[in-house]
Amino acid sequence: MKKTITLAHGNGGKLTHDLIQKSFLPLLSNEHLDSLGDSAVLDSEEGRLAFTTDSYVVNPVFFPGGDIGRLAVCGTVNDLTVMGASPRFLSLAFILEEGFPEEDLNRILKSIRDTANEASVRIVTGDTKVVGKGSADGIFVNTSGVGFIDPRLPAFSADLISPGDKVICTGTIGDHGMAIFTARNDFPLRSNLVSDCAPLNGLLSPLFKSDFAESVRIVRDPTRGGLATVLNEFVQGKPLGIMLHEEAVPVRDEVTVLCEMSGYDPLYVANEGKAVLVVSGQSADGILNLLKAHPLGRDACIVGEVDGSLDGKVILRTRSGGKRIVDMLYGEMLPRIC
Amino acid sequence: MKKTITLAHGNGGKLTHDLIQKSFLPLLSNEHLDSLGDSAVLDSEEGRLAFTTDSYVVNPVFFPGGDIGRLAVCGTVNDLTVMGASPRFLSLAFILEEGFPEEDLNRILKSIRDTANEASVRIVTGDTKVVGKGSADGIFVNTSGVGFIDPRLPAFSADLISPGDKVICTGTIGDHGMAIFTARNDFPLRSNLVSDCAPLNGLLSPLFKSDFAESVRIVRDPTRGGLATVLNEFVQGKPLGIMLHEEAVPVRDEVTVLCEMSGYDPLYVANEGKAVLVVSGQSADGILNLLKAHPLGRDACIVGEVDGSLDGKVILRTRSGGKRIVDMLYGEMLPRIC
Repeated sequence: MKKTITLAHGNGGKLTHDLIQKSFLPLLSNEHLDSLGDSAVLDSEEGRLAFTTDSYVVNPVFFPGGDIGRLAVCGTVNDLTVMGASPRFLSLAFILEEGFPEEDLNRILKSIRDTANEASVRIVTGDTKVVGKGSADGIFVNTSGVGFIDPRLPAFSADLISPGDKVICTGTIGDHGMAIFTARNDFPLRSNLVSDCAPLNGLLSPLFKSDFAESVRIVRDPTRGGLATVLNEFVQGKPLGIMLHEEAVPVRDEVTVLCEMSGYDPLYVANEGKAVLVVSGQSADGILNLLKAHPLGRDACIVGEVDGSLDGKVILRTRSGGKRIVDMLYGEMLPRIC
Repeated sequence: MKKTITLAHGNGGKLTHDLIQKSFLPLLSNEHLDSLGDSAVLDSEEGRLAFTTDSYVVNPVFFPGGDIGRLAVCGTVNDLTVMGASPRFLSLAFILEEGFPEEDLNRILKSIRDTANEASVRIVTGDTKVVGKGSADGIFVNTSGVGFIDPRLPAFSADLISPGDKVICTGTIGDHGMAIFTARNDFPLRSNLVSDCAPLNGLLSPLFKSDFAESVRIVRDPTRGGLATVLNEFVQGKPLGIMLHEEAVPVRDEVTVLCEMSGYDPLYVANEGKAVLVVSGQSADGILNLLKAHPLGRDACIVGEVDGSLDGKVILRTRSGGKRIVDMLYGEMLPRIC
């Protein structure tokens, strides 16, 4: 019989302690976490603080290219990274459904450990709650994160965006969302597509440490809502817009096919290992080369430019030469993508 | 017809933006949250950092003396406070079930705002996920928190506990747990009992700023698992134990009656606005007086002492003069208490 998480694992008593001692600590051990205080006490004099949170409810929990644990670490690392911060400390909170297999929890914990190592961050504080059968769907994860920002780094802001700026996307879009789509039980076909789920601090920190940092206007990771939503957020309410070139936007063949089959638009499909940057026109090529030097930026390209005549809008110039407005995502597309 | 949260409210697109703009920001507005960055950027040079996380799955969501929002703010504030930190910044992450009433969400948001004001903390970053009907039970909340610790404050640790130290409890025990118990649908009787749910930084920070701070060994808030579990954590594996005096432990009459009816032991019932302190014997009376000067410490008292002859154990000296071992909570008592 497989051991399962019971309500007693979340009650703060002995079985909670056992779970921490036997499952969590052996995998996640470091001097901060091991002290098991109510808060992690962190010494740092390194500058400005960044702090973010995200809950993860992805379904299925294990998918091609990742799992909810890797996703939770990457998502929070990336939310810190795109603000110009060096991610340092993560919190980790589980809501588990009674009956969730310990084996699966261990697999997720290992993935969290591995991804935290990959991203050079530490899980320094945590929490576990268990709810009755039927009150949650297996496992939900929250990761919050703290990072530090070099005070010499200029503050990024959508307000800095100017006509002539270029839009860079660090790789193919839609991989994560369509990988989840194919992983859902009801999808009948096999595909080789995997999620792009990856921590972006290794890709972006060289840029932030370079002289090019001053040419960066804003950076975001286009997760829920996809590239289209992030670009709309950049220009919404501003006296300028973005012209996006369809033929320049990198999309894998599998994603194109899956999107055509399912009726999704890759511009709205979630990514978990991509960044979108608006940078000055003069530095765009230099920044592109810098990004391309990193494995995660191999497929980076300039996908569009900021246009002073487009009033707060994102316009797609299609392959056939037509133009259409690319609005923000409205309504739900693919639920529980992260 | 009541408006309800739909899947589209959690998709990162327009309805998510609407929800943030119309529900969250008007209530929680501050310069950090309003920028809606992926991370909150916080400047501080004030010293050591404390960082904590907790998810809240309390059932029911509204209960006598509080709700899941107040609980989430207090819980995280208290986790920072007991480490000696001044709580400053909170994150706020919701997992909502499709169909959850917006009215209830607004009520919870207001409670979060009010409690954050009461505790002088700011919600600086957030996240919302929505899952399908039946995949969560209404609403789950995660709050993570960052606080700063005065570098002059000595580090608290269970390792400092010595024979002759006194154990102080800042008020009556079991109020929160039994208030939740009475609020459950299946409980047939009415009671006037309310949860003790409160932020403890106002009570404890004067102590940490006083000369008595050096006499403090360790502080915890006895939530899940109750007073018994916290005391066991203090002495587990140590060559000393705690003698607890039953007649000194403050318990409300309603809690005593409810516990007798239900078979619960108040020592194991959760509290959400109480602290347990181990302090040096010489300073115990002075610290007690200091705590009693605050409304939340009115019923504070010395409930036991550290005994060098009790090997890692907590012993209760009962009213009748007997002694019994008070072990850590084993198994689940009252699920979804916080």
